[in-house]
Parts: sequence; structure tokens; C-alpha cells
Amino acid sequence: MKLTSKRIVVTGVSSGIGAETARILRAHGAIVIGMDRNEPHLSLDHFIQADLSHPDAIDAAVRQLPDTLDGLCNIAGVPGTADPQRVAQINYLGLRHLCAALLPRIRAGGSIVNVASILGAEWPLRVDLHKALARTDSFADGQAWLAEHPVPPESCYQYFKEALIVWNALQAQPWFLQTSVRMNCVAPGPVFTPILGDFVAMLGKERIDADAHRMKRPAYADEVAAAIAFLCADESRWVNGINLPVDGGLASTYV
Amino acid sequence: MKLTSKRIVVTGVSSGIGAETARILRAHGAIVIGMDRNEPHLSLDHFIQADLSHPDAIDAAVRQLPDTLDGLCNIAGVPGTADPQRVAQINYLGLRHLCAALLPRIRAGGSIVNVASILGAEWPLRVDLHKALARTDSFADGQAWLAEHPVPPESCYQYFKEALIVWNALQAQPWFLQTSVRMNCVAPGPVFTPILGDFVAMLGKERIDADAHRMKRPAYADEVAAAIAFLCADESRWVNGINLPVDGGLASTYV
Repeated sequence: MKLTSKRIVVTGVSSGIGAETARILRAHGAIVIGMDRNEPHLSLDHFIQADLSHPDAIDAAVRQLPDTLDGLCNIAGVPGTADPQRVAQINYLGLRHLCAALLPRIRAGGSIVNVASILGAEWPLRVDLHKALARTDSFADGQAWLAEHPVPPESCYQYFKEALIVWNALQAQPWFLQTSVRMNCVAPGPVFTPILGDFVAMLGKERIDADAHRMKRPAYADEVAAAIAFLCADESRWVNGINLPVDGGLASTYV
Repeated sequence: MKLTSKRIVVTGVSSGIGAETARILRAHGAIVIGMDRNEPHLSLDHFIQADLSHPDAIDAAVRQLPDTLDGLCNIAGVPGTADPQRVAQINYLGLRHLCAALLPRIRAGGSIVNVASILGAEWPLRVDLHKALARTDSFADGQAWLAEHPVPPESCYQYFKEALIVWNALQAQPWFLQTSVRMNCVAPGPVFTPILGDFVAMLGKERIDADAHRMKRPAYADEVAAAIAFLCADESRWVNGINLPVDGGLASTYV
């Protein structure tokens, strides 16, 4: 894959899919600037410690980044077992804030990749709500809209993954037409990562057992990372605004 | 992309997306066996001349193939300006027949890629019909079902692309669980190929003008081929049962 010398920011770089993405990008010659709350235990070209749940912290991290970039992989995320406020802030509002802050620095031909989830597949059921939230244009406006349209805490993970898929679809083409920067989502199914247990707790035994008969196994994080790397690479240069399932076929069994 | 020494059959190899796919696969070290009605004007490892509209002709071509393969790219297709019978036969019934005939020869880890279209995006409107057709399990049974459920000739291209997307989604996971062979679709938007003019004639000026404001330009065939090559390569090994849009963001503007 053509990634040589591309300068790419990877959030959530210290574990799971983020760490594997950094490894693959660097193996293909990219320059990886990692961000995470936690210290990384892998080689990176640069690392910025940051909690991406608040715009001030994000802005502080952004100030430490170079003026020109070739890509951004938004992989940081918390599971549905976390505080629902943090789910909204990290998985959606903060992600949007970071994209908007970095877009002016990403060169034409660059790429943004957002990690959604197979659990966002039911976005068409609530598409009008998700479009309304997508139209808010700052972290604070989004938070104000959410205060008026509260999300059930038990399904907040799914809700904000759906919202991310819809925002990605609405925002990608306007940005691409203006800046020639592409933006896409990846939608992993179950993945062997440090937070797999949180998903089992969140979804319950019935759904886990039903899915187990429909798939071979959870993905290895590097299998998801390989698809993220493709979306960063020049080989995907005409892929924009999509949500790419990387689930070993699981989602197709629900068609 | 990891494609070295993979033995891949490419239909529709003599022009457009098929020719570009062969070029990219071979540039990455794959062994390409091309099939087409017309003579190719590019280097291939082997070429079989065949009209893929009839099971006997497909079976005759299959007899000339090696016993083990790593992939199949179903790129042969005719536009909606062709005879509707040929659209059904080449774009759907023959494609399925070739997949079923070659599946036992494709090694674990191998990949089938089917070229669908952005024009198949409305499959959910007719999903029950498409599922019923998908359940027919031979070329002849499919033809008999179609005789009882006739397709309007003016929309037969869209209909069989929708049907292909649904069949792909239903068939991919059972095959993957049994054989570890993946199967996916690619859905190009407008592409600069020898049949671009046929699409303009088929869709009419109004749709063409509406789409023109929603995209940068038609794709180059090599941009679609790069995504097909990814789906053949080991980098996509956990991608299965999906329909990957390669349309420069056009489909996302209809969310």
C-alpha cells in the first residue's frame, strides 16, 4: 500500500486497533504521530498524551502537531460500559472537533478514517435525529442539542456509533469537494481487544450467542487495522463517504 | 498489497475496469487468467475467449482453468442498453454460475469480487424479490423464476445489480464458514470506460446533471481496480459479504 512518508495522526494508539494501525502504517513507511491517554508500548515517530474528551484538551494537543499532515485515524473510543457523558464526548463530539481542527492541515489527497462499529448498523431507524445532531457545528452546540434530546444511557454506545456513520456520510463529500481530503468509517464486528469483555457485558449473553453462530471468531485487531491502512493509502483514493464493515461477514447475515 | 503468486481469474479482462484490474494484480505479482468475448490488448498470464452469457460456454471455459485458484474477479458486464435477456444472463445468472463452478477450486483465504454498481443502491426497496431469486440455485432455475417474475426492460440493469448485491450478502457468509473463501461486491459510480456513454443514454440528462453537481468527476477505471485488488489481497482478509462503494463520495450524498 502506498503510505511512504505520509504523516498520519492515530488516536487511541496505545492499545488494540490503534496500536495495530500504527504498526501497519509504520511498516509501510508512514510517519505516525500517536495520541492516547495512556503511554504507548510500541515505536512511534511522535507521541502526544491527551484525553480527547474535552475541546480544550484537544486544542492543546493540536497545537503540538505539525502544520501539514496526510491523514488522521480516529480510533480512540470508550465502550458502552463507560460514563455515558464520556461516550458522547470521546466517541462523537471530540472526534468531530479533532477532525475540524485538523482538516486545514491535511493535504489534498489525504484521508480521515473514523472507527465506527457493527453496532451502528441500525442508523436508518433514527436517521432524522442523527442528521439533526450532525447539523450542530461545534462541540458546545452538539452538547446543547444532546441536553435537549437525551440519549438512553444503556444504548448510548450504539447511538453515537450510528450518529458517527451519519455525520461521516453527510460531511465527507462537502469536505472532499472543497479540500480533496477523503473521509470514511470502518465498522468492526467483535474484535479481540482489551475492551472485548465490556462489549460482552453491554450486549448480554443472548446477542453474543446469536452472533457466535453467524461468524468464525472475533477479528484480530490487525485485521481491522489493515482495512484502516487501505483507507489511508492512495489505493483507496476514490473511496469516500463510506462505512466499510470489517467483521468477517457478520453484518451480511442480518440482510 | 499481498498478491504475489496468487492465481486470479478476471472476467471482462479486455477493456475498462477488467483490464485495469489485470494490470494492477500483475504489477503486484499475481498470475492473471483473463476471460472475455474480445481479444485482450495487454499482457496476461493466460487468456480464455468466452461469452459468459450461457452455462455451456461458461462450463467450457471452466474446463480450461487450473485445478487450484486464489481468486475470481467477476468484472464482465453489459450496460442497460443491451438486450435485457443478456443483462440477466451475463450480469447475474452467468456470474453466479461461474462462482459456483469455481468455488471448489479456490483455496482457503481466497477471494471472489463481483462488480455491482451505485445503480444497485435501491436494493432494500425490492429485497424480498431479490431474496427469492437468490434462493434459486441454478442458471436454469433462475431463468424459470424470472419468466414468472418479469423485470421491466428499462430498469433491468439496476434490477440485476440490486439482485447481485443481495445474493452476494446472502451467499458470502455460508461460503466463508464452509470454505474460508471470501466474497464481496464493489459498487462503482460513473467511470470513464468504453460504456460510459451507454449509462448516459440509459439514465437520461436529468439524473446525469444532478449527479454531476454531487461529484468531482467520473472515476478512472484504475481507481476502481485498486479497490478490487484490495479485496483480492490478504489485507482485506476480514472483509466479507460487503458492498464497497468506489464512487468518490457520490452515494453518500444520497443518505
